[in-house]
Amino acid sequence: GAGADNDLYINQAIVFIEDAIQYRSINHRVDSKSLWLYRWYYSRTCQWILSLTITVILALAFVEEPSSLTITSDVRYRLPAWNPPCGLMESVELLCFLVFVVDVSVKSYLIGWKEFWKNKWLMAYILTLIVSLADWIVSLSFFCKESVRIRRILRPFFLLQNSSMMKKTLKSINSTLPEMASVLLLLAVHLSLFTMFAMLLFARTKDNQQDKEWVVYFRNLPDSLTSLLVLLTTANNPDVMIPAYSKNRAYSIFFILFTVLGNLFLMNLLTAIIYNQFRGYLLKSVQSSLFRRRLGIRAAFEVLSSLKETPASAQQSFVSVGALLQVLQKAEMDSRCKQAIMRSLKMCSCDQLSAAQFQKLFEELDKDAIKQHPSSPEYQSHFMQKVQFAFGHPYFGYLGNVVALANIISICVVLVIDADKQPSERDDFFLGAINCFFILYYLLEMLLKILAMGLKRYLSYPSNRFDGLLTVILLILEIATFAVYGFPHPGWRPEFMGLLSLWDMVRLVNMLIVFRFLRIIPNMKFMALVVTTLLDLVKNLRAFAGILAVVFYAFAITGIMLFKGAVVPLGNTSVGPMNSWNIGPTTSMTLPKKNVILWCSAQAELIYCFLFVLSVHLICRWAKIYFVAWWLISSVIWVNLFVALLLENFIHKWDRRCQRESLSDIEYQRTVELMFRDVLEEPTEEELMEKLHQHPHLHLCR
Amino acid sequence: GAGADNDLYINQAIVFIEDAIQYRSINHRVDSKSLWLYRWYYSRTCQWILSLTITVILALAFVEEPSSLTITSDVRYRLPAWNPPCGLMESVELLCFLVFVVDVSVKSYLIGWKEFWKNKWLMAYILTLIVSLADWIVSLSFFCKESVRIRRILRPFFLLQNSSMMKKTLKSINSTLPEMASVLLLLAVHLSLFTMFAMLLFARTKDNQQDKEWVVYFRNLPDSLTSLLVLLTTANNPDVMIPAYSKNRAYSIFFILFTVLGNLFLMNLLTAIIYNQFRGYLLKSVQSSLFRRRLGIRAAFEVLSSLKETPASAQQSFVSVGALLQVLQKAEMDSRCKQAIMRSLKMCSCDQLSAAQFQKLFEELDKDAIKQHPSSPEYQSHFMQKVQFAFGHPYFGYLGNVVALANIISICVVLVIDADKQPSERDDFFLGAINCFFILYYLLEMLLKILAMGLKRYLSYPSNRFDGLLTVILLILEIATFAVYGFPHPGWRPEFMGLLSLWDMVRLVNMLIVFRFLRIIPNMKFMALVVTTLLDLVKNLRAFAGILAVVFYAFAITGIMLFKGAVVPLGNTSVGPMNSWNIGPTTSMTLPKKNVILWCSAQAELIYCFLFVLSVHLICRWAKIYFVAWWLISSVIWVNLFVALLLENFIHKWDRRCQRESLSDIEYQRTVELMFRDVLEEPTEEELMEKLHQHPHLHLCR
Repeated sequence: GAGADNDLYINQAIVFIEDAIQYRSINHRVDSKSLWLYRWYYSRTCQWILSLTITVILALAFVEEPSSLTITSDVRYRLPAWNPPCGLMESVELLCFLVFVVDVSVKSYLIGWKEFWKNKWLMAYILTLIVSLADWIVSLSFFCKESVRIRRILRPFFLLQNSSMMKKTLKSINSTLPEMASVLLLLAVHLSLFTMFAMLLFARTKDNQQDKEWVVYFRNLPDSLTSLLVLLTTANNPDVMIPAYSKNRAYSIFFILFTVLGNLFLMNLLTAIIYNQFRGYLLKSVQSSLFRRRLGIRAAFEVLSSLKETPASAQQSFVSVGALLQVLQKAEMDSRCKQAIMRSLKMCSCDQLSAAQFQKLFEELDKDAIKQHPSSPEYQSHFMQKVQFAFGHPYFGYLGNVVALANIISICVVLVIDADKQPSERDDFFLGAINCFFILYYLLEMLLKILAMGLKRYLSYPSNRFDGLLTVILLILEIATFAVYGFPHPGWRPEFMGLLSLWDMVRLVNMLIVFRFLRIIPNMKFMALVVTTLLDLVKNLRAFAGILAVVFYAFAITGIMLFKGAVVPLGNTSVGPMNSWNIGPTTSMTLPKKNVILWCSAQAELIYCFLFVLSVHLICRWAKIYFVAWWLISSVIWVNLFVALLLENFIHKWDRRCQRESLSDIEYQRTVELMFRDVLEEPTEEELMEKLHQHPHLHLCR
Repeated sequence: GAGADNDLYINQAIVFIEDAIQYRSINHRVDSKSLWLYRWYYSRTCQWILSLTITVILALAFVEEPSSLTITSDVRYRLPAWNPPCGLMESVELLCFLVFVVDVSVKSYLIGWKEFWKNKWLMAYILTLIVSLADWIVSLSFFCKESVRIRRILRPFFLLQNSSMMKKTLKSINSTLPEMASVLLLLAVHLSLFTMFAMLLFARTKDNQQDKEWVVYFRNLPDSLTSLLVLLTTANNPDVMIPAYSKNRAYSIFFILFTVLGNLFLMNLLTAIIYNQFRGYLLKSVQSSLFRRRLGIRAAFEVLSSLKETPASAQQSFVSVGALLQVLQKAEMDSRCKQAIMRSLKMCSCDQLSAAQFQKLFEELDKDAIKQHPSSPEYQSHFMQKVQFAFGHPYFGYLGNVVALANIISICVVLVIDADKQPSERDDFFLGAINCFFILYYLLEMLLKILAMGLKRYLSYPSNRFDGLLTVILLILEIATFAVYGFPHPGWRPEFMGLLSLWDMVRLVNMLIVFRFLRIIPNMKFMALVVTTLLDLVKNLRAFAGILAVVFYAFAITGIMLFKGAVVPLGNTSVGPMNSWNIGPTTSMTLPKKNVILWCSAQAELIYCFLFVLSVHLICRWAKIYFVAWWLISSVIWVNLFVALLLENFIHKWDRRCQRESLSDIEYQRTVELMFRDVLEEPTEEELMEKLHQHPHLHLCR
């Protein structure tokens, strides 16, 4: 009947508005049951369970054999890791797979059959699940003794497919690949021509004394190629040049030419290409988000306008205020926005809303969340007012910074003095005494500020929260120290007691004091700009970081599979500083193989792995290919992507620095969407309506 | 009288037009004698003498004591360098100074007294000359035994002040300095905070076994600072991390945090800042060049319009065609432009030219020099026409590329096969025979192409010139080989004869063949684009390269002065591959000190010097500061400048790739000015006239 229809329309409107808020696509089924399923699927609980499942399945690698989650990385010292019995990890895995099966079925059902065939991501999802389950069965039937587990490499896919931002970014990267491939081809040509040149130039001669270059770096084709590839990363520079250079200075021309062409020109060309491709990337993605939002709101308007209670107008469609209020009450959205929209609705004092008015109401969603700090308490007493003025003044904050600096300098001085002392000679009295004094000052500063600003206003500033938290921790540590070791006095060197030694306590306190010094950042204009840019960047980089994590994970698992058991500990021989060179390779050779996940979390390290492996020649050809691929992806391509995004973000921010300086007291919650506000184009009504009519499940009457 | 006035006006017009052509400022004296002096000063001979003088004075460092222009860089083997007698180099220097004195006096006179006081460069020039001459006198009075020669460090200034482009670039760099300083300050804060953290984290413990990190890298404040500074260049990564990491994996968090913040964020921020500053740099500089050109032409128009023979018109001023012809004949300019302007003048067939017409005539100067290739010869015989079609076809060129590739591959195969053979076992027959065959093919290809295209058309393509030249050289080498060593036959291993051994001959031929393979570049679209971008970049980078050369020179001289005699050769001990580690440091330690000029021509090497010196701790604190400064300037700042320019150039070129593809046969002589053609703004008449009225020496009647 009409009532059921009306309910359906209201529900549709609620879902469309929620879609608009979350920037989701509206192309899903819109019948009552599907809407209920859709809201359930996108409810916090469901999404949280999904995220948890992804985290769990990715974290399995840290526990599964061969895991390496031990404190030391040195194969000679570390204890055998805990080996879970066969079936335990596998049942956790099966549980995760079941969640994914539910996820993919709900998703496929909601977008409908027709859309499903167009969606390659969903099909890949199903394929991955099938392969994983098959591999899981194989694994169980071998009682977990099988050597290759394909499903491990496939795991990061679950992370990838769950984030629309990551999928979008991947598409962008994908479109840059042809040009990147051209540059990489150029690099390959450059490398191979120079390799031939080098082999001709540094050929074996009859005089063995003169052969150093040939013996070490250019003995044969793979050696020469490797030497020059490593030179491209500048890691063996200028070692590779020294023998030839000491024979004849003119040989340096070859190496300089190679470095300048390869490193300065071709490598930076890659940066240029990637930057060129990503220049509009952020803008484009924000633009499409805006379109989704407008489309969701328009769709809500259209379904509400077809409610039976509304008088049908020939020219324009309208929405009644009552229906909108009904929708607003049921829709899940930020309470601030909801109240603001309600308020405008009341101020409007009209019964009907046109499409334009409807859109305008929801512009509240796009607005900056202006954060007003609570006001200071108003004291009656004249003395208290003076106190409030004095300690609420910025100069009091500056004084605090000066004191923090003095503290840092005093710690530094003590460190320099104590640098060469034996631990037994060290006297902790001086450091203990000054830290005690400074921590008392910090406490006083905090209390006076709270007095002057009131607790609420004090806590509303992030810098104060940072400051206060550290001060409280320092105070607790100091009290604990005094409780365990007594008050400091000259010659204060008590024995080890409790959890930490006095020296460790003092060190911890000092580290926290150094960390607390970061509170000066907002006081320096340029620093504040840089830090906010960096924070923005971190927000915008989430998708990139996710893709990087996916790549890292896949590489780590591949590495574990490739180099399993390649390292045998060399026995617990005596270790002095003299034969640390012998130990160096042993310990670090263990790293690329078993601990890639943890150890290679900084890409720079991996490059070293790569160079190390290449230069030591202990591992087979596969390792070489593995590490070259790793270097290309993690160092060359990802770093360039990062530089491109940093350039984009920073230049954008820098250009509008002047505009922002005027608004100093009001803190904006800046998001990517807001950053590009004035460059974004509003979608036209025609575009929106055309898109709405293409909706696979919603059939509008007009 | 009027005749003399007219002559003066004509001369002024000639000079102004020459100024416009050379993009020179017109703010110089304009009386007859000064004009003569001005034309003389800017004549080719004078400018050539000036350039020669600058080259000579800069090159003196290669001959003067302590020079290091020897073949080997190894202090143990090299012969003592030639030591010129006192007075010889000094007289050459005096000669140069005299030329500079003349130069500065003429320049100062020509711009006039008032302008002189505004020109800081000229005053600095005079000051430098005075200091240099004083130092020269001191030097002579000590019979060249004095230890410090200030004038050597001042020498690069003469290069700097002679190039307006370099002065402009320096101004640009100067305006970026405040922001760069902010980032460097941030870097310093980052470094010092992390140093304190590291010292607290890796403090000395009671257990000596656990102390590795402290012993090697964080023993005291300077050591810690150095370790982390080197980590910022990623050179000691992950060596610095290994001891701590093998104790506890969690320590890696410290190093990863430091690397990510310092290397990934702060260092790239520097790139962003520099790029942001230099984004408009090229455009701005081209825009100001355009303004100078228009101004010069307008000035010529104004002086010609005040010629007495022209009827004075109240409203507009005109220039007679005759006067212009007279000016054109005397002015020095490109003959192609001159003819084009003459042609348009004749086609115009009017007596008087308005300002707009006058400007329009000279637009020929801005136009691309379109290079039309001469046409192929037309053969009568039907057979010859077919031959011409076959060998003039692009496919014949492709065949040549395929053959060159086959040659490269064959050389590669022989190299791989011969890699481990002793020189005495090596058989040169195979390589000799195939090279002989290939070179014959190359000769044939060249001759057939000349037959098909005609010699003139053949030579008009740069790729053909490259090809032909190499083919001729290869042919000569091959004939020489056969003349000396006879024809190749199996077991062809003749004794050493003549200038080069057979093996060296074959190597030389092979290298040339590898080099000749570069002819494929224009055939690959993307490669061609990249190569043209790089060539453009090299043109635009001249000013930067000049400044870099200035910085290099100053650093080299300072280095020579600072580290004079710091290295003593360690005696001629036996050198096997086993103790190459001992030799490494010795030979490379000599480098940073004596041979900085030559050796450090690739900046990457210098970074190594810096790291090397820092890690060996042989040299005093001054060396540390010297190398840190060097690293900052040459690596950090200059490389970032380079990246900024590359981004600018490449993105500009990439954007208009599509436009250019349509014009394939016509080769443009692309200059920076032309690249920005469609973005440049023409100066308005008001701007030009305002500037003209501000001219310090030219007093226009109106």
